[in-house]
This record gives sequence, structure tokens and C-alpha cells, in this order.
Amino acid sequence: MNTVQVETPGGHYPIHIGPGRLDALADSIPEDATAIAVVTNTVVGRLYGERAEGALARSGKRILRIELPDGEAHKDWQTLNLIFDGLLSSRLDRKAVLVALGGGVIGDMCGFAAASYMRGVRFVQVPTTLLAQVDSSVGGKTAINHPLGKNMIGAFYQPIAVEIDTDVLDTLPSREISAGLAEVIKYGLIIDRPFFDWCEDNAAALRALDPDAVSHAVRRSCELKALVVSRDERESGLRAILNLGHTFGHAIESGLGYGTWLHGEAVGCGMIQAALLSALVLGLPDADTARVRALVQAIGCPVQPPDLGLQRWLDLMQVDKKTEGGQLRFVLLPALGEARVQGVPDDALRQVLALAAAAPA
Amino acid sequence: MNTVQVETPGGHYPIHIGPGRLDALADSIPEDATAIAVVTNTVVGRLYGERAEGALARSGKRILRIELPDGEAHKDWQTLNLIFDGLLSSRLDRKAVLVALGGGVIGDMCGFAAASYMRGVRFVQVPTTLLAQVDSSVGGKTAINHPLGKNMIGAFYQPIAVEIDTDVLDTLPSREISAGLAEVIKYGLIIDRPFFDWCEDNAAALRALDPDAVSHAVRRSCELKALVVSRDERESGLRAILNLGHTFGHAIESGLGYGTWLHGEAVGCGMIQAALLSALVLGLPDADTARVRALVQAIGCPVQPPDLGLQRWLDLMQVDKKTEGGQLRFVLLPALGEARVQGVPDDALRQVLALAAAAPA
Ligand SMILES: NC(=O)c1ccc[n+]([C@@H]2O[C@H](COP(=O)([O-])OP(=O)(O)OC[C@H]3O[C@@H](n4cnc5c(N)ncnc54)[C@H](O)[C@@H]3O)[C@@H](O)[C@H]2O)c1
Ligand SMILES: NC(=O)c1ccc[n+]([C@@H]2O[C@H](COP(=O)([O-])OP(=O)(O)OC[C@H]3O[C@@H](n4cnc5c(N)ncnc54)[C@H](O)[C@@H]3O)[C@@H](O)[C@H]2O)c1
Ligand SMILES: [Zn+2]
Ligand SMILES: [Zn+2]
Repeated sequence: MNTVQVETPGGHYPIHIGPGRLDALADSIPEDATAIAVVTNTVVGRLYGERAEGALARSGKRILRIELPDGEAHKDWQTLNLIFDGLLSSRLDRKAVLVALGGGVIGDMCGFAAASYMRGVRFVQVPTTLLAQVDSSVGGKTAINHPLGKNMIGAFYQPIAVEIDTDVLDTLPSREISAGLAEVIKYGLIIDRPFFDWCEDNAAALRALDPDAVSHAVRRSCELKALVVSRDERESGLRAILNLGHTFGHAIESGLGYGTWLHGEAVGCGMIQAALLSALVLGLPDADTARVRALVQAIGCPVQPPDLGLQRWLDLMQVDKKTEGGQLRFVLLPALGEARVQGVPDDALRQVLALAAAAPA
Repeated sequence: MNTVQVETPGGHYPIHIGPGRLDALADSIPEDATAIAVVTNTVVGRLYGERAEGALARSGKRILRIELPDGEAHKDWQTLNLIFDGLLSSRLDRKAVLVALGGGVIGDMCGFAAASYMRGVRFVQVPTTLLAQVDSSVGGKTAINHPLGKNMIGAFYQPIAVEIDTDVLDTLPSREISAGLAEVIKYGLIIDRPFFDWCEDNAAALRALDPDAVSHAVRRSCELKALVVSRDERESGLRAILNLGHTFGHAIESGLGYGTWLHGEAVGCGMIQAALLSALVLGLPDADTARVRALVQAIGCPVQPPDLGLQRWLDLMQVDKKTEGGQLRFVLLPALGEARVQGVPDDALRQVLALAAAAPA
């Protein structure tokens, strides 16, 4: 087992990473917990609910399961309320502990429920998708969607522990693995050039879920995310670099309708666009943009952005919440392994978007 | 104008108190605010909306009004969502500032909306009821109700400023004034004996809204609440003393159906019960319990608890969230001006409740 320590003003906590962590969940339940609520969905609950609860039972605490409908479409207030209904009808108090057992949707919703239930109870993240293991479970961002925008309602709220069982990835569809790997290579691109190189060398092993490769990728991703988050818990500066490829990616996701492309797929493609923009604005060498594209392809994500039409691309990117005060800002790469957030000239952006429009459908 | 400074780990901010503060609201809007959303209800909006917006216009910012239906019955998710709808459909970003213009219901809802919108935007409290001026606007507790419990969903989230215009109390029904005064005398009882004495001497002036008396009472209440809150922002210990009379009070409110008695009325009566319990458990002199009763009466609150029946009293008090881990704990008064939280013998509690049952209906 590996442990990564996260230090933020909002809380210090360990991330435990390794095969079989699901069976050790009781380690993360504090002595003074009055009860445990396992928040999961129908899919993950069927696969891992009993095992998780069996492991938690070793804590000797009362255990309640709250099973939500599956999918991003349910990341809304109605579903969040099902958590509150469950907690309140079982009379869980402020010393109860919530356990988020699932992907990023469950982690984000359970985290926000923990932040808000009685103004804050403790929770443990048990991420079961690769994306959740390397990204959403670390850093304390929680949220639900609103009909007028994704992740618009939430809180910065840290878990008391993150338990990552790399074995559970075996049941994950391979498309989800590829999408998660896009966030993995993102860390190399923005902050750790040697890790980017390592990902190039291990792309095939990662897709095949080679245990050593996956363990290393998850650990290094958590370390890098923890590093960024510890310096900027509330996203006032540095943390923005984690959004590499995301302004383009969000436009793809919402332009095609959420769920058409997976988030990680859109981010993978968006990172190629961000690299192209970096070439135009900061002179990132063509050889480097080619490497980004090749690695996104190697991990199994699409590399050709959809043709949304120039105006629609622009419209979609304007509503992205990173447009504080009106100016469109992007995470750019001065070099592989380095990131910088800055405004870009309009014509450079249009040139990159034209590549999307010009491509074969 | 008086200024009280609040210092908590979650934020430092001023409380400005004085007649006419409504016309100075622009003082509290930071330079970098991108827009202002005034969150109010139909009653307060009609009375003070235009004046507040006129004053805020001096900041030069775009101003949006979000007017909610009036009343505790609307302190729920549906109404909270109206705030998010308004913010999102007007595309307010993370640098917008919310202004809570109203009583405790508006303050609690707007505060929770500010805590959650895009994971946190700034907000200013402009409390317009006495209860909100001396209690709910200070300390950072925000919440909405759930069908299974009051204030069950919320956040600890501090405003960037509190603006208290004591003039607006002129339009408040006198029953609301009395209810607010119950929380005022609470501060004297738990922590400031001279202030309790002062309230006795000024009860009539306070009820008549004598400007000097009201100013002093509001300022001293804010100071005392700020003192308690600064030592215990997240209610892990000391802050519990602010709940003097509240375990009884909540039982009255929910036993009779919310809205039958005002919260402050129930708390006023509950403080008498807490004093009686203190006499039995800690030997608080009878002369002191008599003074508590006399002052609650003098400010215009009921002094006779409703006859809910012993068993129902006990049931209602069990669900109060101060029963962490099962034991019923009360805020007791070893002397006037001193408070202590502790478990009480069952028979002492029954004896106090019997007084409620025995009384004429
Ligand atoms: N909080 C953050 O910092 C952050 C960061 C990135 C993404 N997110 C959020 O994360 C969400 C996406 O997360 P996701 O990609 O994990 O999606 P998801 O939670 O919807 O999971 C994807 C699918 O895989 C299923 N699944 C989960 N674990 C499984 C397993 N071990 N075996 C088989 N199936 C399994 C799920 O039930 C679901 O159907 C989005 O809502 C996004 O906004 C949050
Ligand atoms: N956050 C906290 O620490 C805290 C503390 C105590 C109470 N509370 C909450 O506060 C709420 C009660 O607050 P409240 O007593 O202010 O009730 P309220 O907000 O419902 O106001 C009472 C009534 O007075 C009206 N009103 C407000 N200002 C007025 C004015 N100047 N002139 C005429 N009418 C006016 C309101 O529209 C309402 O009809 C409860 O929801 C309670 O849970 C919160
Ligand atoms: Zn992402
Ligand atoms: Zn109160």
C-alpha cells in the first residue's frame, strides 16, 4: 500500500492506494463515529456494496446504505435529497460518517451532502473509477449540477480519508479507463515532464490495467494533484492549471450534449487543442504538440474535435465559468511539464477552432 | 454608527450598526465585485428594496433583485433554487456579491446560497428583524429546512460584512420585537450579568423602540455573540451556550406546529424552564428564576409553556440535535450571567415539564 498525504487549510488527510483497500475500509472510520452511511449507486452497489459493508462492519458501527440512481443525469438536487432523506429518517447525527462508494458523480454528491448535512459531517472517499481515483476524489471540490450549469452548486470540503482500491478498476468499461487516463497525462503535461515521458512508455500497460503501472499512475497523479491543491485549496490561482484542456473539453461535452463524449475524452481532445493554442501563442514546438496528440491517441481517447461550428464553439466557451470578468483565459503550455494561465488573442483561438471545423466529420 | 469586529477562522468582518445604514450599503461592496444580487422577500422588498438598491447603485455595479416568497414555510430547497435560478440566468460569476435583505429566513437562505453558488461567493447580511440583527446575521450559521427537520442542511459560512439599520425595526410587528428581545436577554443570562440588569431597567424602552436603548441592545448583543462565536466557530463546545432555552423552545415550536409561537417567544419561555431546571440541578436561587420570568414577561413574551403532555415533551426534546450520542444535555445557569452545558437527571427534567402540564391551558 502507498500513502499520499494531503495538507490543505481545510483538512489534512491520507490517501491510501493499493489492491484490496476495499477490505480495509474500517481503518478510516474514527473511534467516535456514531454511525456510517455508505452512499453509492445501483451499479457500484451491486458490484461492491456488500464487500464494502462487510469491511466496514469491523468498526462495530451501525451501517446504513443509501443507493442512488446511476449517472450524471442524477447529479442533481432531487438525488442529493435522497441522501438527506436517508440520513434523517435513520436519525444520523453530527458524528456520523459518510462513505462515498462510486465514481466522481457519487463522490461529488456525497461530498456535498457531507458538507451540508447538519452544516458538516465527516466523509471518506472510496473512488471506484479511474477518473475519480486520480482526480475527483482528491482536493475537496464537491458539487451538484443545476439545469443552467454543471457543478454550479457545491462546496470546498475535504474528506477525512481517501481509500483507493485499484482492483475495482477491473470491472470498469475500457472507455472509462481511457477517459481517466486523459486526466493522468494532464498532470505530466502541466507539472511533471518525467511523468509525461513515463506515460508515453507505459500507455499500453496502463490501458491493459497492468497492476504496477496503474498503481504508479494513480499514486503519482494523487501526489501531483495534492501538491497543487495544498497550495491553492479554493482555486484562486495555481489550481486553475488543473483545467488544462477543460475549456475546450467543456465546450465539446455541452456542445454535443452531456454524455455523448465522456468528460475525460473531451479533456483529452481539449488538451490537444490547448497544445495547438500554446504553439501559436507561446511557441510550443510542433514536435511537442505531436507528442500530446500521439499520447492522447495511445490511451484510447479521440483526437479529432467535433465540428461544432466556429460561432458555437465561441459561445460555448464564453459560458465556461473560467471567464471571470469577461476575458477568456486558457491554461497554456510554454513547454511540456509547465503550465501558465493567460488571456489569448482572439485570432489564435479562432485558428485553433478552425482546425476542428475543417476536419472530416 | 457603531462597529463590532467579528474574528473567526472562517473570516474577519465588521458589523456596522446605526440608524440609516441602509443608505450606506455601498460601503460594504468590494471594488472587484462583478455584480450584486439583492436577495429579499416580497414583504421586505416592498418596504426597503428600492432604497437598498438605490444605495447600492452608488457602487456602480450591476444590480439584480431576487424576490422570494415570505415566511419560514419557504425556507426550503425549492426556494433556495429560485436564488440559483436567478444568479445563473443572469450569469453572475464567482466575483458577484449577494446581499441578504430581510429577517433570519432570508439571511439563512441567502447565506447558504452564497456558500454553495459556484462553491462560494461573498455575501453581505442586511438583517431587518430584531432577531436577525441580534442573532442570526452574526456567526455564520446558514441553513434551509428539510421536511424531517429544521436547519438540517446548511453551512458555516461567514459574510464579508453585516449592515444593521436600526430604523427598519419601525415597520416590524411588535410581536416580532418581543421575540427578538428574548434573544437579547439570553446574552445577559449566559454571559453578561450587568447587561441582564440593564435589560431589566430598559425593558419598556426597548419594547417602545427607543433609539438609544435599541442601539445599545443590538450592539451589546452582537459583541457578545461575536465573542462566543470567535472562540468556537463550528459549534464544538462553547457556542452551545447560545442555545439557552432552545431545547425547550424547539419542543414548543414543533409541538404546537411551527409558526404558532414565534421562535423568540418559544425561547423566552424556554429560558424560564431552563432557569427552573437550573434551580433544581445547580441551586440557582428562586429569586433569580423569578427575575428571569419577570423579564421575559416584561419584554412581551409568553411565560407559561403550553401543555403538550409529558411524554410528548420528552419525545420532542429527544429529536433535538443537541442529543449527540443519546444523552440529553441542557444549557444551565449556575448564576445569572453564567452558563454551563451538562446532562441532567431525568427526574429534575420531568419535574420542570410537570409545571408545564399542571398549568391552566
Ligand atoms: N470534484 C472534482 O474535483 C471533480 C474532478 C473531475 C470530475 N468530477 C466529476 O466527476 C464526475 C465524473 O466521474 P466519473 O467519470 O467517475 O463518472 P461516474 O461516477 O458516472 O462513473 C462512470 C460509470 O462507471 C460506473 N462505475 C463506477 N465504478 C465502477 C466500477 N468499479 N466498475 C464498473 N462500473 C463502475 C458508474 O456507476 C457510472 O455508470 C462528473 O460529474 C464530474 O463533474 C469532479
Ligand atoms: N443563523 C442563525 O444563527 C440563526 C439564529 C436564529 C434564528 N435563525 C433563523 O432565523 C429565522 C427566523 O428569523 P426571523 O425571526 O427574522 O423571521 P423572518 O425572517 O421570517 O421575519 C419575520 C417576518 O418579518 C418580516 N419582516 C422582516 N423585516 C421586516 C421589517 N423591517 N418590517 C416589517 N416586516 C419585516 C418578514 O418578511 C417575516 O414575515 C428562522 O428560520 C431561524 O431558524 C438563524
Ligand atoms: Zn477533468
Ligand atoms: Zn434562537
